[in-house]
Amino acid sequence: MAAKRNAVTTEAPESSAPGEGTALALDSRLSKRVESVIPKKRHEALKWFGWGYNDSQFYGQDGIICFRGEKYPLGGCELPSFTKWVEKKFDLRVDTTKPYPQLPRTYPRPVENAPFLHELKGTTQVDYSVEGIDRLVRCHGQTLNDIYSLWHHKFRRIPDLVVWPRCHDEVVQLVRLAHKHNVMLVPFGGGTSVSGAITCPQNESRMICALDTSQMNRLLWLNRENLTVCFESGIVGQDLERVLRDEGLTVGHEPDSYEFSTLGGWVATRASGMKKNVYGNIEDLVVRVRMVTPSGTLERECSAPRVSCGPDFNHVILGSEGTLGVITEVVLKVRPLPSVRRYGSLAFPNFEQGVLFMREVARRRCQPASVRLMDNEQFMFGQALKPEKSWWSGVVDAMKQRYVTSWKGIDLNQICAATLLFEGDLKDVQRQEALIYEIAAKFQGFPAGGQNGERGYILTFVIAYIRDFGLHQGIVAESFETSVPWDRCSLLCRSVKQRVVSECSKRSINYYTISCRVTQTYDAGACIYFYFGFRSTDVADPVELFEAIEHSARDEILSCGGSLSHHHGVGKIRSHWYRNAVTETGSSLYSAAKRHLDPKNIFALGNLLPLEEAHPQAVASPPPPSTSSTPPKAKL
Amino acid sequence: MAAKRNAVTTEAPESSAPGEGTALALDSRLSKRVESVIPKKRHEALKWFGWGYNDSQFYGQDGIICFRGEKYPLGGCELPSFTKWVEKKFDLRVDTTKPYPQLPRTYPRPVENAPFLHELKGTTQVDYSVEGIDRLVRCHGQTLNDIYSLWHHKFRRIPDLVVWPRCHDEVVQLVRLAHKHNVMLVPFGGGTSVSGAITCPQNESRMICALDTSQMNRLLWLNRENLTVCFESGIVGQDLERVLRDEGLTVGHEPDSYEFSTLGGWVATRASGMKKNVYGNIEDLVVRVRMVTPSGTLERECSAPRVSCGPDFNHVILGSEGTLGVITEVVLKVRPLPSVRRYGSLAFPNFEQGVLFMREVARRRCQPASVRLMDNEQFMFGQALKPEKSWWSGVVDAMKQRYVTSWKGIDLNQICAATLLFEGDLKDVQRQEALIYEIAAKFQGFPAGGQNGERGYILTFVIAYIRDFGLHQGIVAESFETSVPWDRCSLLCRSVKQRVVSECSKRSINYYTISCRVTQTYDAGACIYFYFGFRSTDVADPVELFEAIEHSARDEILSCGGSLSHHHGVGKIRSHWYRNAVTETGSSLYSAAKRHLDPKNIFALGNLLPLEEAHPQAVASPPPPSTSSTPPKAKL
Repeated sequence: MAAKRNAVTTEAPESSAPGEGTALALDSRLSKRVESVIPKKRHEALKWFGWGYNDSQFYGQDGIICFRGEKYPLGGCELPSFTKWVEKKFDLRVDTTKPYPQLPRTYPRPVENAPFLHELKGTTQVDYSVEGIDRLVRCHGQTLNDIYSLWHHKFRRIPDLVVWPRCHDEVVQLVRLAHKHNVMLVPFGGGTSVSGAITCPQNESRMICALDTSQMNRLLWLNRENLTVCFESGIVGQDLERVLRDEGLTVGHEPDSYEFSTLGGWVATRASGMKKNVYGNIEDLVVRVRMVTPSGTLERECSAPRVSCGPDFNHVILGSEGTLGVITEVVLKVRPLPSVRRYGSLAFPNFEQGVLFMREVARRRCQPASVRLMDNEQFMFGQALKPEKSWWSGVVDAMKQRYVTSWKGIDLNQICAATLLFEGDLKDVQRQEALIYEIAAKFQGFPAGGQNGERGYILTFVIAYIRDFGLHQGIVAESFETSVPWDRCSLLCRSVKQRVVSECSKRSINYYTISCRVTQTYDAGACIYFYFGFRSTDVADPVELFEAIEHSARDEILSCGGSLSHHHGVGKIRSHWYRNAVTETGSSLYSAAKRHLDPKNIFALGNLLPLEEAHPQAVASPPPPSTSSTPPKAKL
Repeated sequence: MAAKRNAVTTEAPESSAPGEGTALALDSRLSKRVESVIPKKRHEALKWFGWGYNDSQFYGQDGIICFRGEKYPLGGCELPSFTKWVEKKFDLRVDTTKPYPQLPRTYPRPVENAPFLHELKGTTQVDYSVEGIDRLVRCHGQTLNDIYSLWHHKFRRIPDLVVWPRCHDEVVQLVRLAHKHNVMLVPFGGGTSVSGAITCPQNESRMICALDTSQMNRLLWLNRENLTVCFESGIVGQDLERVLRDEGLTVGHEPDSYEFSTLGGWVATRASGMKKNVYGNIEDLVVRVRMVTPSGTLERECSAPRVSCGPDFNHVILGSEGTLGVITEVVLKVRPLPSVRRYGSLAFPNFEQGVLFMREVARRRCQPASVRLMDNEQFMFGQALKPEKSWWSGVVDAMKQRYVTSWKGIDLNQICAATLLFEGDLKDVQRQEALIYEIAAKFQGFPAGGQNGERGYILTFVIAYIRDFGLHQGIVAESFETSVPWDRCSLLCRSVKQRVVSECSKRSINYYTISCRVTQTYDAGACIYFYFGFRSTDVADPVELFEAIEHSARDEILSCGGSLSHHHGVGKIRSHWYRNAVTETGSSLYSAAKRHLDPKNIFALGNLLPLEEAHPQAVASPPPPSTSSTPPKAKL
C-alpha cells in the first residue's frame, strides 16, 4: 500500500490552517464512533429470514391482516381494507396460523484457508466469527430468490468467515491478506441489495470471507464552512441522519432502504434518494471517496468541489458493486436542516395526465424535494393500506372519495395520484406549492390533501415488509425499476404492464398485481418503479416463474428505450444484459480495470459480468462439478 | 468494430415509436451539416500565430493601443487608459512599429508511412492534406509555450498529415487504419487547449496524423419532448448555439473559448461554462457520448437520464484528453432560451468581503447564471480597458468613481467587484436580483450598475487577444486556474499571489501583474482564475522563466488544498503532478485503461502521464537521440 500524504482522514489538520479561522468550522470534537441501531450481531435486531426489524411484521389475526412494530406509525393497526384487497386480488383467505420459517439446524461446512486464518489471528486485531448464524445472515441480499432460498434452506455456499474491521487501515490489512492467500472477500454493508450483488457465488471453491463494515461507522470530521462531512462507509442511513440532525444538518439521501443500508453500499450501487431533487443522488453528494483494492487505495487527492484531472475515477468506484474493492471512507456534502417540511398530494383523472404533469414540472425544473406519481393500481393499493381506526381514515376519506368521484366527475378506476414533499424556507415552500398546484391544474390535477401525501411517504418504509408476508401467504412479489427518456415514459409503463399481463396469461397465472409509479424526474427523463406479484400456491417453482416473467419485463423495458437500472444496480440478476448496455468495448474496459485492480479476483462476486467472463484466468480452482456457474437469471 | 444495434445516431427512428406522438417532438428535418464560421482551411479565418480571428487584434497606433475586429463591441476603439496602464505597469512604451511574425519558409519534413497512406487513399473517401501550413496550424494549442514556439519557428515535430473525416464511420475507418499501420493520431477540434494537450510530442518517430473533426459538425437530431440534441463532436460552440437559437433553444455551455472550441474538445477536457449555474458543466450536459478507440466504440446503450449500470464510463471519456480515442457524437441536454437576460455588478470594499458574499450565495444556492468576483488588480485592469469615447465611459464613470470613493468612504486600492448575469423568466430574474443584492448588502457590497456587469462579460472574449499583443510588446502572460474548498479560498488567493511576488523578486522581475478572480461557485468550494504576466524584454528565455514561476504557483496551489485543474485539464504542462493528484493506484488504473483501449498507443499525446510512463511497452521505436522526452514543464 503506497503511503498517502493526503488521505481523506488527514483533512482535519489541513483545514486548521492558521489565519483562516477554520478552527470553529471544523468540528473535530464530533469525531466519534456512532452507536448504531443495528448491533454487531445483526440478527439480534434484524430478521434472519427477511426484511427489517425482528419486531416489525405483517401478520394475520382472526382473519385480518395486522402490522406490529412500534417504530412505524402503522404499528399495532388492523388492516381490514388491505385484507379485503389481498383476498380479492389473489382469491385466497389470509392464513393466520401458518408459522414463519425456522433457522436451519446445520450450516454448510466452511472452507478453510489455514494460512490466511493463521495470519489474520497472528498479525491483525480484526474481530471475526465462524458461527453459522453470523455467516448465514451475510450470504445474501433481499431479492425474492435470496429470501426464498433462506426460507427453504437452499443456500449451499455461504461465507466461511465474517470479519469486522474497525477502520480503513484494518481493511487495508484484510485486503492484503486475502490477496496474498487467495481468499474471496464480500464487502457487506446493510445487506439490502436487491440485485443479487452480495449473494455468494454458489460455485466459489476458495474460502469466502464476508467483510462486514458495520464497525466502521465513525463520523471522522465535519466542516461547517465547506458543508462537508467525512464518514466511514459502514454507517447506516438512519444513524448518519440522526447524528447530523443533532448538528442541525442533513445529507438528505433517503433511498427506501435507508433505515438499514449503508453509505458504502450507496456508493457501490449508485443509489438514488427520494429527495434527490434538493440533495442530489449519491454521485452528486460524494465529494471524495476511498476504495481499498488489492492494487492500492484509489482516491482523489484533494477535496476541491469540481476538477478536470483526467478520467474521474470516483465514477469507477461508484457502481463498482463490490467487485473492485472495499469503500472505506466518504466525504459527503451536507445541508442545513430545512426549516419547513410540508406534504401534499394531487389527484389526476388518469395516469397519462399525471405523466404530462410530471414532465412539465421537470421541464420547468421546479420539482419539490420529492414528487411521485402512482398509477391507479398503486393508488388503490395505498387506499387499501389505511388502517380501520386512525387519524388518517374514516369519514374524511369517504368525503374525499365522494368529492373526487362525483363533483369532479372522475372515474375511480382511472384516477391516479401524486404525493409531494416540500422542504425549505417557508417562503420557498409556499412559492413551490403555488407553482406545483398551478401546473397540476393545467393537467386536470387537483389537490388531494397533505395527509394523503404524508401517508404515502410514511408507508414507504412499511411497504418493504409486505413482500415477506406475501411469501408467507403464498404470494411472490418484488419490485423492479428503470429510467427512460420522457418521450417513452407512458409507452414504457403501458407496454411493460401489458407484457406482464400477457406473460401471466401464457402461464395460466390468473391472480396477480402489476403496477407502476414515476418516482424520480430529470431534465431528460424519469425513473419508473414497478411492483409485480402473483399467487404462487399452485406453482412448483414460484421464484423461477417470477424471474422468467421479470426477465421478459426487462426485455420489454429495454426495447422501449429504458435502462437496465436506475438505482438498484446490475448485480447478478441483470448481468445478462450488462454487456449490451455498455457495449462490448465498455464491458471489456470493465474487465481490464477489474484485472488491473484485482488481479487474483478476490472480489469475485460475479456482478455486472458473470464471473468467468470478467476474469477468465483468475478462477482459483475448478468449481465443484455439481454446480452450475450460471447466475440466477442469465439462464432464463 | 462490433456492429451496433443501437448507436447514438439511430435514436431518431426509435423515438418515432407509433402511438407516442413523437413525430413532432423529434425534428429530424433539422439534421444537417452546419455552415461553420471556421473554414476547413482554418488559417484563412484564424491566426496561424496566435488567438482568434485574423481580422481581430490589439495593435499600437500613434502610441495608443487600439483594437480592431468588427465581431467585438471593442472593435475600432482606441484605448488610452489601457495604454497608460500597460506603460505604467510594465515601465515601457507601446511599440507601434514592430511587425507580427512571419510564416516559416519551410516546414519539417514529414514522416511517411507509405502503407497507411496507400490504404487511406485506396479504401476510404477521407479528405487529407500534406501541406505545410495545414500541418503547422494543427501542431499546437494556445499555451504561451505553443505561441512562443510558433513565433520563433521552433516546432521540430508537427503532424505529417491532416485528415478530415466527415462522420463517425470515417473515424472508425481511420482509427482502424492507424492502429493497423501504427500511425499516431491527434484528435484536433478547435485548437484552443491551454494545457499542451494537443501539442505534438516532439519525440514521436512514427507518422503523426492530425484528425481534424471540423467537418463532423452536423446536428443529427433534436428531440423537443426530451429536450435533447445530438451533434457531431466537431461543431464549434458559437455554431452550435446559433443553430439552436433559431429553434428557440440553447445548450448554454459557454467556456471563454466557445467561439472556437468544439463539443468534442469540451468533453475531452471536462470543460466548464460561464453559465454553469443554470446549465451545468459539460458532465452535467452530456446524456450520451461515443468515443472511437482502437478496441471499439465506447458508448452507453440507452439515453435514459440516469442509470446505475456499473462504473460510468462516460466519466472515462470525459477528461480523456485525446489519449484514449476520438469523440464523435454527443447527446446533450438543451433548454428553452430564457426570456430575460439581465446584467448587474457589485462593488465590495475588499476581496475578502467579496469571497464571503460568494460563499453565502453558494450556501443558499441562489447563484444567478453567472457570478464572478474580481480582485482589485483585475478590477483596475477592467476599468483601464474602457475605450475613450463610447457608450460605456466618460462622465458616468467619473460620477460612479466619486460615488464609490467618497460617499461610501471606500479605498479604491482595496475595492473589488463582482459581475452578474441573470437568465430566466422576468419574475425569476427579479426575485434572484432582489435576493443577490440583499445578500451583498450584508457583506458591505452595493450595486455598481448593469453596464459594468455587461462590459465585464463582453470583455471576456476580447481579453483572450491581449496575450499575443503582450508577447509582441515583450510581455509574457498567461492564465492558470484551480478549484478549492471554501475554507481555503481566500488563503489560496493570497498565498499564490504572494508566492508569485516572491518568485518574481527572487528572479529580479520588477514589472509584472498578478491578479485573480473567483469565476465559479459550488456547494463545497469555488474555481479561482489567476492572470500572471511580466515584462520579459531583459530575459533570455521568457517562456522557461514563466513556466518556472507558474510551476511554483501550482505547488503553492496544491499545498493550499487547491486542485490540479478546475477545467483546463492536465495535458502535458501539469502531468508532473497527475500521479499524486489521483494516487499511484489511480494513475496505474489510467494506464491499464489506456493499454486496453489503445494497445499500440496510437493516441500518443502523452497527456496526464508522460508518454513513457503511461505506455512503456508501446513506444514504437526509440526517439531520435537529439530530443528530450520530458514534457514542457515536468523538467522544472
